[in-house]
Amino acid sequence: MLFSFFFLYRVPVLVLPPIPTDASNDLMEWFDESHDVFNSLKDIMLSAYSERICRLNESAKRAGEVFWWPFTQHNLVPEETVTVIDSRCGENFSVHKVRDNEFITQQFDACASWWTQGPDAILQTELARDMGYTAARFGHVMFPENVYEPALECAELLLQGVGKGWASRTFFSDNGSTAIEIALKMAFRKFSSDHGILLDFFKNNRAEKSVELKVLALKGSYHGDTLGAMEAQAPSPYTGFLQQPWYVGRGLFLDPPTVFMCNSIWNLSLPEWLHAETVELDNTTFSSRDDIFNKHRDKSDLAGIYSSYISHKLSQNPGLKGFDHIGALIIEPVIHAAGGMHMVDPLFQRVLVNECRNHKIPVIFDEVCCGFWRLGVETTTNLLGCVPDIACFAKLLTGGVIPLAATLASKDVFDSFVGDSKLKALLHGHSYSAHAMGCAAAAKAIKWFKDPQTNPNIISEGRLLKELWDPELVQKISSHSAVRRVVTLGTIFALELEAEGSNAGYGSLYASSLIQKLRQDGVYMRPLGNVIYLMCGPCTSPEVCRQLLIKLHRRLRDFNKVEEKLVSC
Amino acid sequence: MLFSFFFLYRVPVLVLPPIPTDASNDLMEWFDESHDVFNSLKDIMLSAYSERICRLNESAKRAGEVFWWPFTQHNLVPEETVTVIDSRCGENFSVHKVRDNEFITQQFDACASWWTQGPDAILQTELARDMGYTAARFGHVMFPENVYEPALECAELLLQGVGKGWASRTFFSDNGSTAIEIALKMAFRKFSSDHGILLDFFKNNRAEKSVELKVLALKGSYHGDTLGAMEAQAPSPYTGFLQQPWYVGRGLFLDPPTVFMCNSIWNLSLPEWLHAETVELDNTTFSSRDDIFNKHRDKSDLAGIYSSYISHKLSQNPGLKGFDHIGALIIEPVIHAAGGMHMVDPLFQRVLVNECRNHKIPVIFDEVCCGFWRLGVETTTNLLGCVPDIACFAKLLTGGVIPLAATLASKDVFDSFVGDSKLKALLHGHSYSAHAMGCAAAAKAIKWFKDPQTNPNIISEGRLLKELWDPELVQKISSHSAVRRVVTLGTIFALELEAEGSNAGYGSLYASSLIQKLRQDGVYMRPLGNVIYLMCGPCTSPEVCRQLLIKLHRRLRDFNKVEEKLVSC
Repeated sequence: MLFSFFFLYRVPVLVLPPIPTDASNDLMEWFDESHDVFNSLKDIMLSAYSERICRLNESAKRAGEVFWWPFTQHNLVPEETVTVIDSRCGENFSVHKVRDNEFITQQFDACASWWTQGPDAILQTELARDMGYTAARFGHVMFPENVYEPALECAELLLQGVGKGWASRTFFSDNGSTAIEIALKMAFRKFSSDHGILLDFFKNNRAEKSVELKVLALKGSYHGDTLGAMEAQAPSPYTGFLQQPWYVGRGLFLDPPTVFMCNSIWNLSLPEWLHAETVELDNTTFSSRDDIFNKHRDKSDLAGIYSSYISHKLSQNPGLKGFDHIGALIIEPVIHAAGGMHMVDPLFQRVLVNECRNHKIPVIFDEVCCGFWRLGVETTTNLLGCVPDIACFAKLLTGGVIPLAATLASKDVFDSFVGDSKLKALLHGHSYSAHAMGCAAAAKAIKWFKDPQTNPNIISEGRLLKELWDPELVQKISSHSAVRRVVTLGTIFALELEAEGSNAGYGSLYASSLIQKLRQDGVYMRPLGNVIYLMCGPCTSPEVCRQLLIKLHRRLRDFNKVEEKLVSC
Repeated sequence: MLFSFFFLYRVPVLVLPPIPTDASNDLMEWFDESHDVFNSLKDIMLSAYSERICRLNESAKRAGEVFWWPFTQHNLVPEETVTVIDSRCGENFSVHKVRDNEFITQQFDACASWWTQGPDAILQTELARDMGYTAARFGHVMFPENVYEPALECAELLLQGVGKGWASRTFFSDNGSTAIEIALKMAFRKFSSDHGILLDFFKNNRAEKSVELKVLALKGSYHGDTLGAMEAQAPSPYTGFLQQPWYVGRGLFLDPPTVFMCNSIWNLSLPEWLHAETVELDNTTFSSRDDIFNKHRDKSDLAGIYSSYISHKLSQNPGLKGFDHIGALIIEPVIHAAGGMHMVDPLFQRVLVNECRNHKIPVIFDEVCCGFWRLGVETTTNLLGCVPDIACFAKLLTGGVIPLAATLASKDVFDSFVGDSKLKALLHGHSYSAHAMGCAAAAKAIKWFKDPQTNPNIISEGRLLKELWDPELVQKISSHSAVRRVVTLGTIFALELEAEGSNAGYGSLYASSLIQKLRQDGVYMRPLGNVIYLMCGPCTSPEVCRQLLIKLHRRLRDFNKVEEKLVSC
């Protein structure tokens, strides 16, 4: 058995001469006899090491030949800009640098690997142990009509945590996009059931659909890459014929008011439709970020303006055809992440939710990016002060180790699928639904992040993360002349660079030089056009965040100088 | 450190009295002193065991309260029918039976957990070790513009294996549905580029799309649950307004000829459009299954009939509007799995591929179910004798342990996204793209399944699995009066039960009693309406498969008797 193991894995076997048992032997003869064996061992180790370095040296080139990277124009990625990642430990990449003869250097993963990451080094070790155990114990076992411990524990933790007070069911899938598509199906069924469409459908045994369902959504929000998820987003660079030949945009898309910090002050930025309405408003600034989230704003004039605008929009026929209905509201609570790290006025979103509830329109929270402490709270219901009927989670759900998504739903939503026929059930599911490893990782991460024993950033009895970004530095950066606006909340610090024309927007390469400099400082960032951000994990220490801000601030100064030079040329 | 570990995990610490060092001591006194400690240990172990059994006993009930199972009408799943899975080892579930006081029993996972499964017990152990290692070394690191060993190894193995001879790029995603959506985007871009649509688009700087792209697909094929994937399937129980309110069916859907075994003979079943054409055909049976795949059929009259029918269809305007184009062909090669385990005549699919190529229509193979040895070959290009431009893989790709998908593409397809602008790139990607654990599992499984040293079923220099289903038993079952047709290929054995009216079709519960009996025999199956199937892994021994067939055959006999009884009543 052991021999076959060695054979299978080509484990080299070296045999030393027997060690002398005579206590008086000074072993010199034995060492002499062993010389060749030790030399062989050294050769094997050296050759393994140099093979590994060889592989790392070649890997950027080979990657460029076989990978098709997502969201990447390959023409813009020469071999020397490819990052060779040898490993990660907690928040840090170990990067192998071929050219500079530096070999391995550390870089802080400041884009949290597309916002998935959360583990510190200890949690990563814990998750590694759990992944090995769970793969050995369960591999993957199918989910429908079955139960196994990791899935049950994970579902219950979700309902007791992010779904507390409103959710009664957990539907698992693989990523944010699929979680959103499932949410849309749930919402439309609930809407059809509440508004007599379902009854009409059954009574007349219709084959053809009698209504066209649309979503109510916000401009600038992003809900994933699959076509169904894309239909819930307003036209953008992602939705054109070039990218999504089938996109039509099945929604009424409202332009939301946003908030941001500039020159140390939090400001409200109003969309065009509000300009005429709000000339009377005394003040469009806030004394602090807490002030933005304060529920006293519900009684303000602005709340009334928001409310009557939305109510007016809902009473209008949103589409061209006579049978259009708005069958769901979908929002990214508080932060429009992929849309450029915009903070939406939470008062506007709360009013929106309440108006939809009055119209019996099911409410979906897309918490794929913002859930699980990304915004400093476990779920954004805590920030918005209202709950959805359906909510989607992914990314940080597993602590950032493995893909898994969950769509949570209220009892009423679930009940609209219950009946005697299988055809009334939600006929949607992916092969690895509720896969054991994903559920085990999620269960561990959910508990880890909210326990003050494992997460030193937890305050307020597990309801809040302490402030991670040094307020003084944040204000300083927000006052920098190269910076148009700053948004900071929970694990996110984002800024938009002042830029005009082709330098602005998603396709812009304006931030590239800044990003490259910061990578040299050991900060791995990726831009969203002229928006850049730092993102840490829920357990990252405020001191680490402070160092990141200091590095960013320093490079901003240089960036400005380069820009000034360019202008003066 | 050790103490904090014990504290964190509440590991009980029991302290024994010091063991006497005097060699003459008979330890009786020491045992006496230790008595209480050993008793405490026993209590702890007993209480852990009974807690575990308690949890297992309760879990069916708790599952019914918190899960929303995919593809499941919860009203039809009473607590006592929920399967409590305590673990899996290779192809077998360990099932905890609450009611029968049997506790743990073994069941062969004969639906391969939604067709994902392939590992034998040894591969599962290997994968478990690799999962622990990879989680510790990489967790997840982001993919775009980066490279790390598991992703590189996996991409290269895919191109050298299932993509050999045609594919040049690997695009990773999370599941079959997303892999298909990516494939559609790739195909449409390639079509637009080849047919001047792209040029026209850029020249006129169009915001509006000028053409409507459709797919050419086969009736009965299934390509996943997300909306984009669904649009590529013909109307079915999955696509109605109740399930997919946005579905329109963006395709020209052809009814394909199928093949199946009945009364020990392989037959060709012709769709309606072919009846008139083929009255002249001498023979619609085959001497063997190999005969069906034989390339000599390319010269038959039937090939000519297929070809002129498809050519005619392609020359017709497929839609109502003047700007419709067929921008992609998408097929599940050989087996329509979710559509009821139908084997499509491979000659028809080959002719279809060739005709599309002549019209410069990109060809997509959906190998999500049928790839990686599911049909006895690593890729179905080996069975069909032709290659695609794009192919999708998932399910068995990771050996069945974790979700991962790959869309492979030819150089020409990739080149249609290359340019100077990011906006021309494929702007699609999921957060866990090419996650390290998935890639590591895939790399291990790909090598494991095709290596005769690890997979005893491999013959023909790694190109073929030996026959797994006993031919004599297969013929016997195909001759059974309760059986309408049998399909067997690679790891799949499927049969359709004779059924009429509401007993037939996807919503039917006709097979339920048979399935329940087989579960009592230790065979875990799930029906597709009145179609049932056995599915094993690429390494499962033919003897195990034979035992499964014997059990199925025996239960079919009883099933028939019950049916006869019902008829005579």
